[in-house]
Amino acid sequence: MVDFQKTRDAFDLPEGIVYLDGNSLGPLPRAATARVSALLRDEWGQRLIRGWNEAGWMAQPGRTGDRIACLIGAAPDTVTVGDTLSIRLHQALHAALQAAPDRREVLTCSGNFPSDLYIAEGLLRTLDKGHTLRVVPPQEVAATLSDQTAVLMLTEVDYRTGRLHDMARLTRAAHNLGAVTVWDLAHSAGALPVDLRGTNADFAVGCTYKYLNGGPGAPAFLYVRPDRAEQVSPALPGWLGHAAPFEFEPSYRPAPGISRMRIGTPPVIALAALETALDIFDDVAMSDIRARSITLSERFIAGADALGLQLMSPRDPARRGSQVSIAHPEGYAMMQALISRGVIGDFRAPDLMRFGFAPLYNTEADIDTALAHLSDVVLNRLWDNPAYSVRQAVT
Amino acid sequence: MVDFQKTRDAFDLPEGIVYLDGNSLGPLPRAATARVSALLRDEWGQRLIRGWNEAGWMAQPGRTGDRIACLIGAAPDTVTVGDTLSIRLHQALHAALQAAPDRREVLTCSGNFPSDLYIAEGLLRTLDKGHTLRVVPPQEVAATLSDQTAVLMLTEVDYRTGRLHDMARLTRAAHNLGAVTVWDLAHSAGALPVDLRGTNADFAVGCTYKYLNGGPGAPAFLYVRPDRAEQVSPALPGWLGHAAPFEFEPSYRPAPGISRMRIGTPPVIALAALETALDIFDDVAMSDIRARSITLSERFIAGADALGLQLMSPRDPARRGSQVSIAHPEGYAMMQALISRGVIGDFRAPDLMRFGFAPLYNTEADIDTALAHLSDVVLNRLWDNPAYSVRQAVT
Repeated sequence: MVDFQKTRDAFDLPEGIVYLDGNSLGPLPRAATARVSALLRDEWGQRLIRGWNEAGWMAQPGRTGDRIACLIGAAPDTVTVGDTLSIRLHQALHAALQAAPDRREVLTCSGNFPSDLYIAEGLLRTLDKGHTLRVVPPQEVAATLSDQTAVLMLTEVDYRTGRLHDMARLTRAAHNLGAVTVWDLAHSAGALPVDLRGTNADFAVGCTYKYLNGGPGAPAFLYVRPDRAEQVSPALPGWLGHAAPFEFEPSYRPAPGISRMRIGTPPVIALAALETALDIFDDVAMSDIRARSITLSERFIAGADALGLQLMSPRDPARRGSQVSIAHPEGYAMMQALISRGVIGDFRAPDLMRFGFAPLYNTEADIDTALAHLSDVVLNRLWDNPAYSVRQAVT
Repeated sequence: MVDFQKTRDAFDLPEGIVYLDGNSLGPLPRAATARVSALLRDEWGQRLIRGWNEAGWMAQPGRTGDRIACLIGAAPDTVTVGDTLSIRLHQALHAALQAAPDRREVLTCSGNFPSDLYIAEGLLRTLDKGHTLRVVPPQEVAATLSDQTAVLMLTEVDYRTGRLHDMARLTRAAHNLGAVTVWDLAHSAGALPVDLRGTNADFAVGCTYKYLNGGPGAPAFLYVRPDRAEQVSPALPGWLGHAAPFEFEPSYRPAPGISRMRIGTPPVIALAALETALDIFDDVAMSDIRARSITLSERFIAGADALGLQLMSPRDPARRGSQVSIAHPEGYAMMQALISRGVIGDFRAPDLMRFGFAPLYNTEADIDTALAHLSDVVLNRLWDNPAYSVRQAVT
């Protein structure tokens, strides 16, 4: 039996707050402040340049990558950490297109992050080889896959609705047609079991500031299937992806395997915070997290149903990530009202309230408190209060 | 009169160390630990997702950029901060090539960072439009510029020797021939006055972990001349470079000006550390830093000359950045011997010892101590000691 009280205690959660926005930014691990302070004071401050070797900074991206690999069903030495998700996606898509040189269609769905589409558009424009980015509704992806598809690029969990793609089935279908897959795990990693090895996915990317709780602006990760890694000619050949970074050779030679996808100097301070966040996963199986996520979200949905609210997430928990979305014309004001009562979810235009469930720290009591406030908001039409309905800058 | 004792006191320097490697990694600002701890505990911990607006995280890249702009002769709203130098160079070179669409030669010199050459090679290969990367010796750059040159891409200060390019003259020469300029200021920013406005340079990039003291893996910066910024179609169109990031539009629309060069989520923790480092520059003019840098490096050169050592840096201080390099066949072991005595410089193959001078914290006493130990190493041939000559992994 997993001790979720222990994992909850590992976070420094503010008094009186029910935090249901870990799908946007996870909370502060209690150990992070001391660890980062020690890194600054003892490693950077005292060791200075020697920290790169003596304090293991240079090895951080691979070391952290191996820990994330455990959470997404990947083998050691297949994941590297650093840069942002946009950069990682650019690298992955560029590499995937190399593996399908005779095809010109990148297939994705409208449930993908718009930012993933921007990066794909940008890369295809830079390549200028006649590639097209084909965007279809999520439910049409399988039927649209064809022997024209170069790359199937999908985000497993829809950030709006929590709808979950069937990674195993779609990866198999893509491979059967000769296409290469790129999976964005931004809303998957740390939220539900992912089986990169089992599904035989080619490339995957994700961020670490959502369910992995790495902190604001925490670095992203990139997975490359080992056989693919040896074939990649990196789009962004950085010095730390060189076979011998400190030889300062005039031309790039790729490092072996995943290491070639390293780019510049690793974000040492951010990685130290992330490592404390990953520590919290050490005693928990992703299957336990998933089971509890379903318990929490089903409890929430039952309450929302009782209030007559419109569920925008799949009702079948097997088809849903670890979030529940509710549509309401007054969703913006409703969320402001909830936040003013200490229940933090978020809002996505035009009308979506999002509630993320992170079993490492969310409890049944959190759900019940959230539902009590949601009931108050609905039954008393609190959205009519101008204090809530006037739009502010949103994140 | 600038109070360099005050700036030195702003750093947490280890006892008994003479640190002459700020050209590789600057030391810890005394205020960094408290600031980063406060960010973790009070902003991330307590405000959680609300930190993006309430704690100003979203505005960090521009706010920090404006402070760096002051140090490199750039106007407000022309510099953004985030990502690594490799990514920033990729963006800048891609944008520069857009501004010279009918030419195919990127001119650079062998004194550039190899990593800059890797990124350029990678981009030109991705573009696959027949561009060539032409690498000439530093002293031949001016004569090689021609009406075939699309982009002149140079690092102002050679990381090996400290040789300083004449940015004003080369930029003018490039512009006279219709070429666009990309300057890497990695060893310039914070070390010597840079006048981006006065030289009319088109693009510039740099890192913040050297003379700007932002910490290990601190983010990079990118300058784009305002008229150029409005014309750039970004290579890496990230969501935070979108005109309306929170509208989640399906297609990218560039934000105005430099903001379009933002990519993903900003590295909030690293930027907080960097801000404390930039505070230290507040009461100092770059001209004062430069004057003191020359005093320190001339003092060091005089001592090295007296020991009969071979100076690899330009003897004329006007042609030199803020570092002095000495060649010696036993340079590796000599540097190890110096480090074991608490004098930290670094070594670059095959035979270069590098000593960086950072007036914010280095003193005449530092130079004298370093020279005393260097004298001991030379006069007693300490390189013969196997403890120093056996190669370790180097950074």
